[in-house]
Amino acid sequence: MVSDVQPKQTHTGAVRAGAGVHLGRYVPIIDWLGRYRREDLIGDVMAGVVVAIMLVPQSMAYAMLAGLPPQAGLYASVLPLILYAVFGTSRTLAVGPVAIVSLMTATSVGALAPQGTAEYVALALLLALLVGVVQVVMGVARVGFLVNFLSTPVLSGFTSAAALVIGASQLATLLGLSIPGDSLHRTLLNLVRHLSDANPVTTAIGLGSILLLVFVRRALGRPLARWGVPPAAIGAVTKAGPLIVVVMGTLIVWGLRLHATASVQVVGSIPAGLPPLTVPRLDPDAVRALLPTAIAISFVSFMESVSVAKALASKQRQRIEANQELIGLGAANLGAALTGGYPVTGGFSRSVVNFTAGANTQLASIITAGLVALTVLFLTPLFQYLPRTVLAAIVIVAVASLIDVATLTRVWRYDKADAVSLLVTFMAVLVRGVEFGILAGMATAIFLHLWRTSRPHIAVVGRVGESETYRNVLRHETRTCPRVMAVRVDESLYFPNTRALEETLLRLVAERPETTDLVLIGSGINFIDASALAVLESLHVELRGAGVTLHLAEFKGPVMDRLRAAGFIDRIGRDRVFLSTHQAMQSLGCA
Amino acid sequence: MVSDVQPKQTHTGAVRAGAGVHLGRYVPIIDWLGRYRREDLIGDVMAGVVVAIMLVPQSMAYAMLAGLPPQAGLYASVLPLILYAVFGTSRTLAVGPVAIVSLMTATSVGALAPQGTAEYVALALLLALLVGVVQVVMGVARVGFLVNFLSTPVLSGFTSAAALVIGASQLATLLGLSIPGDSLHRTLLNLVRHLSDANPVTTAIGLGSILLLVFVRRALGRPLARWGVPPAAIGAVTKAGPLIVVVMGTLIVWGLRLHATASVQVVGSIPAGLPPLTVPRLDPDAVRALLPTAIAISFVSFMESVSVAKALASKQRQRIEANQELIGLGAANLGAALTGGYPVTGGFSRSVVNFTAGANTQLASIITAGLVALTVLFLTPLFQYLPRTVLAAIVIVAVASLIDVATLTRVWRYDKADAVSLLVTFMAVLVRGVEFGILAGMATAIFLHLWRTSRPHIAVVGRVGESETYRNVLRHETRTCPRVMAVRVDESLYFPNTRALEETLLRLVAERPETTDLVLIGSGINFIDASALAVLESLHVELRGAGVTLHLAEFKGPVMDRLRAAGFIDRIGRDRVFLSTHQAMQSLGCA
Repeated sequence: MVSDVQPKQTHTGAVRAGAGVHLGRYVPIIDWLGRYRREDLIGDVMAGVVVAIMLVPQSMAYAMLAGLPPQAGLYASVLPLILYAVFGTSRTLAVGPVAIVSLMTATSVGALAPQGTAEYVALALLLALLVGVVQVVMGVARVGFLVNFLSTPVLSGFTSAAALVIGASQLATLLGLSIPGDSLHRTLLNLVRHLSDANPVTTAIGLGSILLLVFVRRALGRPLARWGVPPAAIGAVTKAGPLIVVVMGTLIVWGLRLHATASVQVVGSIPAGLPPLTVPRLDPDAVRALLPTAIAISFVSFMESVSVAKALASKQRQRIEANQELIGLGAANLGAALTGGYPVTGGFSRSVVNFTAGANTQLASIITAGLVALTVLFLTPLFQYLPRTVLAAIVIVAVASLIDVATLTRVWRYDKADAVSLLVTFMAVLVRGVEFGILAGMATAIFLHLWRTSRPHIAVVGRVGESETYRNVLRHETRTCPRVMAVRVDESLYFPNTRALEETLLRLVAERPETTDLVLIGSGINFIDASALAVLESLHVELRGAGVTLHLAEFKGPVMDRLRAAGFIDRIGRDRVFLSTHQAMQSLGCA
Repeated sequence: MVSDVQPKQTHTGAVRAGAGVHLGRYVPIIDWLGRYRREDLIGDVMAGVVVAIMLVPQSMAYAMLAGLPPQAGLYASVLPLILYAVFGTSRTLAVGPVAIVSLMTATSVGALAPQGTAEYVALALLLALLVGVVQVVMGVARVGFLVNFLSTPVLSGFTSAAALVIGASQLATLLGLSIPGDSLHRTLLNLVRHLSDANPVTTAIGLGSILLLVFVRRALGRPLARWGVPPAAIGAVTKAGPLIVVVMGTLIVWGLRLHATASVQVVGSIPAGLPPLTVPRLDPDAVRALLPTAIAISFVSFMESVSVAKALASKQRQRIEANQELIGLGAANLGAALTGGYPVTGGFSRSVVNFTAGANTQLASIITAGLVALTVLFLTPLFQYLPRTVLAAIVIVAVASLIDVATLTRVWRYDKADAVSLLVTFMAVLVRGVEFGILAGMATAIFLHLWRTSRPHIAVVGRVGESETYRNVLRHETRTCPRVMAVRVDESLYFPNTRALEETLLRLVAERPETTDLVLIGSGINFIDASALAVLESLHVELRGAGVTLHLAEFKGPVMDRLRAAGFIDRIGRDRVFLSTHQAMQSLGCA
C-alpha cells in the first residue's frame, strides 16, 4: 500500500532521526567513536571501573550457576563486551553473563553431559555459538519483531519463576551441598533430603555474605554520606558489595585454612592468561538438541537487554535499533563461543549501574573488558581460596530482585487474560522448566487473544447531540430513529469471530422488527479475511431476505480496496457505501 | 459489560426470533412435530425416498472406504438419522456416512488394527462413541464457536486434498487391487507398482459405472424432459445414478457369474436383520489413541454439516443453532456407536438432494431411515453379487465434486495470507495425512494473523473539507496543520505490535520536528493489552521528552474504562482526552 504509512522500518526500529543507510548504521562504533568528546571520558572510565568491580565476582558466580568453571564467566566478560561495543546500538548496555541465561545453559547442557566434564564445557561453547548465529540471522533477516510474541506478562512470569529456580539451585552451594536441580520442586526436595549434611562453616560464611551484601547495597549509603564521603565514592562503594564479600570470604578461608580444616569448598586454581581461542565442535546431534534452547535464549536475552537498553536510551534521547541490537548481541555470543565463554546478554542490574555510574558511550564497556582481561591475566591466584558459598550468596542476592510481584498485581487489575498468561508461564516454569514455560506462556497468550477476538464488542450507536459523532447508545446520551439501526463492530473480522458477527447482527435485527436499514460501521474493522467475507456475503443475502438493507460506513481505505476487488461493493451497491456514519444517517433521513 | 451489546447468546447462535428457553430449544422435534402441517407430507415422503435410494449404495461404498463391511454403512444410516431428527436444528440436513469422515476413520483405526478384523470394527464403534461424546460435550458447554478456528480457506484446502486422497484410495478397488494408502503419494506409488495385476473385467465394470454415473447426473435430464417426463420424476431419476449402477453391476456379475469366472470381487453375504445393539469397549489405550482423531472429526464434520445446514436454512428463513447442532450430531454419532455403525455427519450432496427433492422437516430423514431399515431387513441378499468396483466408482464420482479450485482462485485474489494457509493445509494433508494437515493449516492461519496484526496500518489523517470527518491524508483531499499531527492506528494494541506502534509514532514525530501535539485516534483500537499499555506509558514519557504532547481521541468505552482504571488517563491528563478527533483538533486550534 504505497498510499499508507506502513511501519516498514518500523518494527526494525530504525528511527534514529536522520539516520541514513550508512556504514555507521551497521557498525555503530563508527558513529560514536568518530564523534567522541573528551568530556565523556571521566564518566566512561568511572563506569567501566565500577562495572568491572561488580562483574568479576558476578561472572564467576554465574558461571558456577551455569555449571561451568569460574574462568568461563571471566572469559565471557572480555571479547563479548568489546564486540557488543562495536556492533550494538545501546551506549550504556552492560553485556556479559546473566543469571537466567546461565540457568538455561545449565538445564539444557546438563541434559546432554555431566557437569565438570570437558564435554559439558564444549557444549556450552556450542550453545553460545548457536545463540550468536540465531541472533545474527534474526537481525540480518530483520525479523526482530518476532520476539514481540513474547509478551510482557509472559516475560515477567518467566523471570520471577526463573529467579526462584535459580535461588533454590544456589541454596545447595550456599549450604556446602552439591545436588542437581533444574525445576524448583526437585531442587527443594533434594535440598530437604540432604539438609542434615549441610556444612555449618560454609553455611555461616554464605549467610554472612548475604547479610553483608544487603547491608552494603541498602544501608551503607546513609552513614557514609553522614561522614561526608563524596556521592561518587558512595556510589562506587555501594556497588562494590560483591567485591567486598569476595575479598573477606577469601581472606577468612585462607587465614583459617577452612578449606582444609572445615572442608569449605573453594573455587580452586584458575588458569592465568588471556581467554583461550576455542572452536566449538559442530556435532549435528548436539546442535539439534541445543537449538531449541538457543532460540529460547535468543528471545529471552534479547527481550531482557533490549528493554533495559530502551529504558536507559530514552533517558538520553538515544534510540535503540532492534535488529541491530540482535546483531550486536549475536556478535557478543559468537565472541563468547570463540574465547571459552558461554551465552551472554545485556544484564539489567549491571546496565543500570553502568548508566548511573556515568557511562556515556560503549567505551565504558571496553574499559570493563580491559580490567577483566587484566584480572584473568594476573589476579586469578587470588581466587584460589574464594569460597563457592560466597558466589552462591552473590547470585541469590542478585536474583532476589528479579522476583516481580508488582507486575502481577498491576496486570491482574488491568486485564485478567494477561494475568492468566503470566501465571501459566510462572507455574509452567516452576513445574516443567524454562523452555516449556516460555512456550506454554506464549501459547496461552495467543489462545487468549483469539478467544477475546472471537467474541467481538458490538455496539448500537446513536447521534451525540447535534454533532456528527455517533457513539454507543448505552453509554452516551444519543438520538436514534427506529427504522435505521447503526451498528459498530469493534473488531477486525476474521475466522474466529465470523459466527459471532453473523449471529449478533441477525439477533439485533430480529429484536427490532421495524428495522429497514442496517448501517454497519467499519471504524473498528481493520481487516476482513476470506472467511469473514464469505459471512458478509451470506449476511447481505439473509438481511435482504428479512427486508433489511445493508449499508457500510467509515470502512477504511485498505479494507474497502479488498471489498471492492472482491466485488462485494458492487453486490451490495456502490450507493450503499458512505464515508461517515453521519452521511449515511442523513441520506437515510435519520439525521 | 452490562452497558454493551455483547454477543452473549451470539457465538452460540441462539437467535431464532422469540426463542425463549423452553424444552423445544433442546429437543427441536417437539417444535416442528407439534406444528406439523399436512401439506408438508408429500415433500417429506418424496425427499425421504430419493435420499434413501441415494444413501443405500453410498453408505455401503463409504463403509468400504472406511475399511468396514458394507452393513456398517447401512447400520450407520438408521438410528443416527432418527436421533438427529430429534435433536438437530436443521430441517433438511441429511445425516449419515460421508466420504471424508470415512477416510479419517480408515486412517486412524487402520493405524491400530488390520482391516477386516473384529478389532477394527470395534475400534470404529469406539471412534463413533468418542466423536459423539466430544460433540455433545462441546454443545452442552456451548463452546461450538471453537470450531470457527477452522477457517474457510483451511477447510477448503483440507477438503480438496482429502478428496484426492479418497479418490486415489478407491482407484485400487476400482481396478480390482487391494493396497493400503493413507496419504496420496504412498497410495499412488503402490498403485503404479501393482498396476499390472489389475483385473480387466473389474476395471471395465468400474469405469463403465463411472461413465454411467456421470451420464445419469449430468446428461440424462435433458432428453427425459424432451420426452415429456415430469420434472419431479426427472429429479428422482437423475439422483438414482448410484442405485442404477448398483443394480446393473449386480445383474451383470450375477448373470455372467463373473465373481467366479473372472474373480470380480463382490460385497458377498450381508447379515439380514435390524442394526445390532453394540457396546463399544472402553480400552484406555485405544481411547487415548483415537481421541485426537475424534476431535478432528468433530470439528471437520461439524463445519461441513453446519455450513450446508446454514445455507439451506437461510433459503427458508430458518435458523441453525450451532451448539444444538453439535448436540444433534453428537447424538447421531452415539447412535451409530450403539448400533454397529461408525462416525457420521451431515453430508453436503445428500442434504442438497434432500432439500431440492422437497424435504420440509426432519420427517424426511425419518422416512429415509425407515427405508434403509427395511433394506437391511429384507434386501441384503440382493447385494450378494454387488461388485465392489461399482461402490468404488460411486465414491470416486461423489468426491470428484469436492475438489474445490474455485475457492483457491477467489481467496488468492482476495488475500494472499488466506491463500497460503489454504495451500499449506492442502499440501500437508496430501503429504502427512488429515489430522496433521488440519493442525498445520490452523497453526498457519493463526501465525499469519499474528504476523499481520504485528505490522499495523497507521495513517496520518486530515480534515475532509468542512466536515467533522478526518481521513488518511494520502488517500483523501484533506487539510492539516503543521504543529498538530493526528494519527490513526488501525489495529488493537497488543504484544505482537507494541514495538511497531512505538517505532512508527516516534518516526513520524522525528520526521515532523515542528510537531508539538500528537493526537492518537483510537477508533481502530478495539483492545489494549498489558504489554501495549506499558509501551503507551513509555511512549507518553518519550514524547514529552521530545516536547510533544500526547492526546487521545475517539477511544472506545471499553478501552477507556481500562486505561482509566490503570491510571493512564490521569497520567496524561484528563483534559487530553477527546470524544471525537474534531473536538481535539478544535481545542488545539487546528480546525
